[in-house]
Amino acid sequence: MQIRVINPNTTESMTGTIAAAARMAAAPGTTISPVTAATGPVSIEGHYEEAVAAIAVLEAVRAGEGEGAAAHVIACFGDPGLLAAREIARAPVIGIAEAAMHLASLVATGFSVVTTLARTRIITEHLVVAYGMERHCRRVRATDLPVLGLADPGSDAAGVIAAECRRALAEDGTGAIVLGCAGMADLATDLSAKLGVPVIDGVGAAVKLAEALVGLGLATSKLGDLAPPNVKPYRGLLAHMAPDAEDAAAGRGGGKRAPQDRALAGPDAA
Amino acid sequence: MQIRVINPNTTESMTGTIAAAARMAAAPGTTISPVTAATGPVSIEGHYEEAVAAIAVLEAVRAGEGEGAAAHVIACFGDPGLLAAREIARAPVIGIAEAAMHLASLVATGFSVVTTLARTRIITEHLVVAYGMERHCRRVRATDLPVLGLADPGSDAAGVIAAECRRALAEDGTGAIVLGCAGMADLATDLSAKLGVPVIDGVGAAVKLAEALVGLGLATSKLGDLAPPNVKPYRGLLAHMAPDAEDAAAGRGGGKRAPQDRALAGPDAA
Amino acid sequence: MQIRVINPNTTESMTGTIAAAARMAAAPGTTISPVTAATGPVSIEGHYEEAVAAIAVLEAVRAGEGEGAAAHVIACFGDPGLLAAREIARAPVIGIAEAAMHLASLVATGFSVVTTLARTRIITEHLVVAYGMERHCRRVRATDLPVLGLADPGSDAAGVIAAECRRALAEDGTGAIVLGCAGMADLATDLSAKLGVPVIDGVGAAVKLAEALVGLGLATSKLGDLAPPNVKPYRGLLAHMAPDAEDAAAGRGGGKRAPQDRALAGPDAA
Amino acid sequence: MQIRVINPNTTESMTGTIAAAARMAAAPGTTISPVTAATGPVSIEGHYEEAVAAIAVLEAVRAGEGEGAAAHVIACFGDPGLLAAREIARAPVIGIAEAAMHLASLVATGFSVVTTLARTRIITEHLVVAYGMERHCRRVRATDLPVLGLADPGSDAAGVIAAECRRALAEDGTGAIVLGCAGMADLATDLSAKLGVPVIDGVGAAVKLAEALVGLGLATSKLGDLAPPNVKPYRGLLAHMAPDAEDAAAGRGGGKRAPQDRALAGPDAA
Amino acid sequence: MQIRVINPNTTESMTGTIAAAARMAAAPGTTISPVTAATGPVSIEGHYEEAVAAIAVLEAVRAGEGEGAAAHVIACFGDPGLLAAREIARAPVIGIAEAAMHLASLVATGFSVVTTLARTRIITEHLVVAYGMERHCRRVRATDLPVLGLADPGSDAAGVIAAECRRALAEDGTGAIVLGCAGMADLATDLSAKLGVPVIDGVGAAVKLAEALVGLGLATSKLGDLAPPNVKPYRGLLAHMAPDAEDAAAGRGGGKRAPQDRALAGPDAA
Amino acid sequence: MQIRVINPNTTESMTGTIAAAARMAAAPGTTISPVTAATGPVSIEGHYEEAVAAIAVLEAVRAGEGEGAAAHVIACFGDPGLLAAREIARAPVIGIAEAAMHLASLVATGFSVVTTLARTRIITEHLVVAYGMERHCRRVRATDLPVLGLADPGSDAAGVIAAECRRALAEDGTGAIVLGCAGMADLATDLSAKLGVPVIDGVGAAVKLAEALVGLGLATSKLGDLAPPNVKPYRGLLAHMAPDAEDAAAGRGGGKRAPQDRALAGPDAA
Repeated sequence: MQIRVINPNTTESMTGTIAAAARMAAAPGTTISPVTAATGPVSIEGHYEEAVAAIAVLEAVRAGEGEGAAAHVIACFGDPGLLAAREIARAPVIGIAEAAMHLASLVATGFSVVTTLARTRIITEHLVVAYGMERHCRRVRATDLPVLGLADPGSDAAGVIAAECRRALAEDGTGAIVLGCAGMADLATDLSAKLGVPVIDGVGAAVKLAEALVGLGLATSKLGDLAPPNVKPYRGLLAHMAPDAEDAAAGRGGGKRAPQDRALAGPDAA
Repeated sequence: MQIRVINPNTTESMTGTIAAAARMAAAPGTTISPVTAATGPVSIEGHYEEAVAAIAVLEAVRAGEGEGAAAHVIACFGDPGLLAAREIARAPVIGIAEAAMHLASLVATGFSVVTTLARTRIITEHLVVAYGMERHCRRVRATDLPVLGLADPGSDAAGVIAAECRRALAEDGTGAIVLGCAGMADLATDLSAKLGVPVIDGVGAAVKLAEALVGLGLATSKLGDLAPPNVKPYRGLLAHMAPDAEDAAAGRGGGKRAPQDRALAGPDAA
Repeated sequence: MQIRVINPNTTESMTGTIAAAARMAAAPGTTISPVTAATGPVSIEGHYEEAVAAIAVLEAVRAGEGEGAAAHVIACFGDPGLLAAREIARAPVIGIAEAAMHLASLVATGFSVVTTLARTRIITEHLVVAYGMERHCRRVRATDLPVLGLADPGSDAAGVIAAECRRALAEDGTGAIVLGCAGMADLATDLSAKLGVPVIDGVGAAVKLAEALVGLGLATSKLGDLAPPNVKPYRGLLAHMAPDAEDAAAGRGGGKRAPQDRALAGPDAA
Repeated sequence: MQIRVINPNTTESMTGTIAAAARMAAAPGTTISPVTAATGPVSIEGHYEEAVAAIAVLEAVRAGEGEGAAAHVIACFGDPGLLAAREIARAPVIGIAEAAMHLASLVATGFSVVTTLARTRIITEHLVVAYGMERHCRRVRATDLPVLGLADPGSDAAGVIAAECRRALAEDGTGAIVLGCAGMADLATDLSAKLGVPVIDGVGAAVKLAEALVGLGLATSKLGDLAPPNVKPYRGLLAHMAPDAEDAAAGRGGGKRAPQDRALAGPDAA
Repeated sequence: MQIRVINPNTTESMTGTIAAAARMAAAPGTTISPVTAATGPVSIEGHYEEAVAAIAVLEAVRAGEGEGAAAHVIACFGDPGLLAAREIARAPVIGIAEAAMHLASLVATGFSVVTTLARTRIITEHLVVAYGMERHCRRVRATDLPVLGLADPGSDAAGVIAAECRRALAEDGTGAIVLGCAGMADLATDLSAKLGVPVIDGVGAAVKLAEALVGLGLATSKLGDLAPPNVKPYRGLLAHMAPDAEDAAAGRGGGKRAPQDRALAGPDAA
Repeated sequence: MQIRVINPNTTESMTGTIAAAARMAAAPGTTISPVTAATGPVSIEGHYEEAVAAIAVLEAVRAGEGEGAAAHVIACFGDPGLLAAREIARAPVIGIAEAAMHLASLVATGFSVVTTLARTRIITEHLVVAYGMERHCRRVRATDLPVLGLADPGSDAAGVIAAECRRALAEDGTGAIVLGCAGMADLATDLSAKLGVPVIDGVGAAVKLAEALVGLGLATSKLGDLAPPNVKPYRGLLAHMAPDAEDAAAGRGGGKRAPQDRALAGPDAA
């Protein structure tokens, strides 16, 4: 089974971190196809960047559907474009925030999220409501580390995050930690060992949930609001995003290759 | 005061309907600058189309900020790109679903929404939660009229909508009706008269709320998550959406003109 | 358009502060008719005083309806008598807490309320639920300033309130401040400038929302629970509050002049 | 122990029905002191009438406190003036809607309310939220019987109510019925027998809860928002409602006898 | 009226404390029949112990039904087996957490719970949701006293609890205290006097609610999900818990005497 | 990896159905160890039966922990004993209701549950709240098929269920179906094909979630309320359920073999 793991930002090195975490989580028969967003910001730290990043996510999902992906993972903790992506996919589409929160609720009665900049906290809080996690998520904690700073050796990101996790365990009445950024994916195992509680990285969580759904033969519902978008004209810069009749028949949203499709292919896709 | 009224879809005739409703609502000193989305679908009836349409909304808001708009109205009932737009605007940004629901809650203890295709109902239901209207909104009712069918003389759209409103009043324990599509903006006055209850069109509602905020000197908060997006590189097709330092200083998100900016100018803007 | 701005307490000097704020907010064509409660406590700082104050509010709304008011504003942050007033009014009736919270939710994703005595906090918390603002209102903060102390030059009320606002911005993850008392109406502009975030006074907010509704031709729904009270006898001290058939026909609750109507007329009404 | 059972409307015959139900519920050592509202409407069927009726409720509670009442029951299903009354009472104050809903939640996992006019449904729905009964109360059903029609022999009120209860049991997935009007108090026993499920009258329920609190020595908390109202001047028709220092010391809101305890001469009755 | 007060743990000395509190609360005509769990842990401080304790609770309720108990009280603050017990009882069944929270909401607008070990806090928090007390319960505070330590003279339990109550009153904006363990039942009166606010012990509260329901003739609803369990075979160690046809006819769940029924009899039952 | 799939009822044939569904879902490296409850009712259709069944579930989880199970599945749609089981397990414990609802929320924006007897609906509704699925679960529908009737060839259970699913899709605005009983596990694939929407069986879903957690190295949190039960004496029939020090060290609740693992002699089986 091929799972497309889409990095919604345009920083390829971060795709590498994400892909490594995805592969570590993947079952033997699973192939991880990492994809870097073809367009958009180099990191995603707010509503505006989420909205712009959604376009590349949708392009990547559409492309993946054309190539027979078994599932799609949106590897940014704001889950940009999630419901939109489900409209154009037959295959399951999983966001990493969604995945991490769902799994956290299975191993603890309460969890805290440790994330990056304070300004992204609101995005997580809105997702907590959308996913029904108000009573499970005890607190969303920002470290004020920028996303791209996570990979900066001089930042002591791992130390800062570990310290915030410890505060969460001491103050929040929480039994598990959810890491609130795809760029923290490599820290989960180490932190779990150090802190002695489940520390959940959404990338691995989403890969396993994707495998679960595919293993059960469960695809995205095409009845109701997740049905393929209606066939209609699109104009201007994003005209290539229009679905055509062939897409609709296949249960997908877009058939024409986007102009930047060449750039969509990730390391595994060549 | 100049209020940009942005039609997030690319159908110019619908911009006309919207602009007319906006002008009917506007106070003497208000200028309505209608804008048609420069890119995206001709109508918006689902999550996917909302996501694509958000790009044109953001472009239009950014352009409006550059031109000194006093406020921005997003004239599609899904309020696409609303929080993202607020990040790049100093001026208030109002969505029409938001506006209609807030005003409805001031004239009735409960309201029903009458909208277009059944598949869009979920979008309204999610907004009802986002805006805290769960106890005010009694029901979201679909007519299964497509958005562009509203303007089709053969559709009897007005009759179909009136009939659904009557069912709402009879069955939902509701005291007011919210029209769930910008394309219904021209029906509100007539329906109010016929049904004897407040029938609220979001376009007019948003214009009045924009005037209210501007009149009070209230701008979008720039403290916290609605601060201007951080300055960082954007790649690919949407690279023009990157904010630059000048934008950030001005409290805006993007300074370079988008390639399609020429097309952004609406009827009033020439 | 004439907007009745009702001070539910019986302190005329506070009516002056309120009227000044209302006039500063009003559009050119709007006339503000300030009204001081004809009966009740000199300030409102609890459930009991709210209940008593509601009577004068209802008398004032009824009188205003008789005089053709375009809208009514209830200028006490507990919004006393709001739904009752809507039953006897065709014109819109707006509470200042309601108005401030709705507008705050349009310019920030979260706000804090800064109010007077700690004992009034519960009233605001109940309104937060009633208006669906649980996810927008981050915290209600008391200063323990009594209402009438706000106007006391020796109280340093402005300083105390500014300090509490600063704490709110530092601790609550909040992007805007709502001032929780009509007596603070004169502080909003100055605080906005000092704090660099939207600071919202409910009096101005309510005037603008009233203008908005009137401008759209939206009146209080008379279908369902906000219909005029049924015509029936009232006994004793409050017998004058009984609606009569003429009121009901006019969509109002009370036709006979209340005994204290003479005293109801505010500065503008002569 | 003396329990004041206050009929918030001014119809003495209804006080009789209420008093009979209260006495039937009372324990051997309990004395029921029925009180008819000294002022206000003859029946309560809306927000406006609730607001007016609250005054007489407060007068009655204050008088009862002066006479050493052990507890107060507010015998109207909208619980008018409940929190205000608690401020001026040391003794417990119980509303009948509150009482009925709490007891219903102890004998069934879900209940339906059967009430009078449709326009009063919203009042119950707001109380359902205030009392945390959203998940227990399955539906509020109106019969469109006016309150005073309940006692009209020609109305077949008992039959109409029984029929609505049967519909509730058949359609709502409900295990108990709450009668939504003090005027139905005499029907509960008979309906319980006929329907084979608990049918709960709030008057009896409130008497028993009052006995429970008194028996446990539990009085209304005077810490925080239910503390006695601050001593301050009141003006006009309701000037007698001002608490004085003696009241405050006694933990009550008003010490002067209300004018209508002697005679209701007119406005500002000296 | 005979009320069975069931101590769900197997520590007889704690049954003594509970029985004393119940008798102090009981009305003259009420007989308290204390019952110690025939099986299970000596104290209950977690989900697992609650689940085990539920068996003895059900056995005790079944036995009590056979002996004509007028009502059953489950005297552990987690209310173990509450809904299950209601299926096999015609008589009312009241949990002490439920009872305490309901009564607390009648004397204060907000309360705090002071409980034993931190690990039990989650159980209370889940009950707060189940009983609709999210807006009334301001905080659940643990003292980290073990249940059986409450009776240990060297523990200074009373002092520790009083100190935590004082913190609650100072920090939580709370007007009443709910004691979160049956083992604290003897502290309520003294704490009320010391702290000057209502301090509510669930044992007494449940006895009074049981008296209230019995006094009103209200029994557990047998319509719907609280109907007697269906008659069907049970196997293994708990085979004696199977209801038989005779039970079902009597509205009870189990007719055969449980093997440990001999041990179920408490001090009063001989 | 060995996953214990526990049938909480004592009907071995139903264990067979459950085991077959579990094996169909299991990944190549997974071994399914089916367990039939050693004690309790032959089917579970109410609160009482859930409470009794929890004991066997806990015994099975404890035994499984002793045997090195990688995960535990509780295969009854009420998830009996779930949190209690987590206290005594290091390995993940998954309930099938929980599993089905979480996965359903990933493939549709709304789902309906189709279950057995009407009396079980409340159990699902309570779980919907516990799992935060209020906004995803559109309706819980009963078929009034008894659990053991599902396997009765004469019952046309498959037809009845299919018909109810069709009604759900037509009326509930739902995109997926959750089967509300472990006994329906064999119907999911066929129903998915017939209805054209995801039909989710909790047994398969729980197996896949267990594999996911194990694959990620995520175990049940032992910090806070899911820590092993404290070591303390248990008395009477269930004395064998007491954890001992060895259990606690291993992070488990009970080390001694339960009496029914060998033979069920009687009470207090030595």
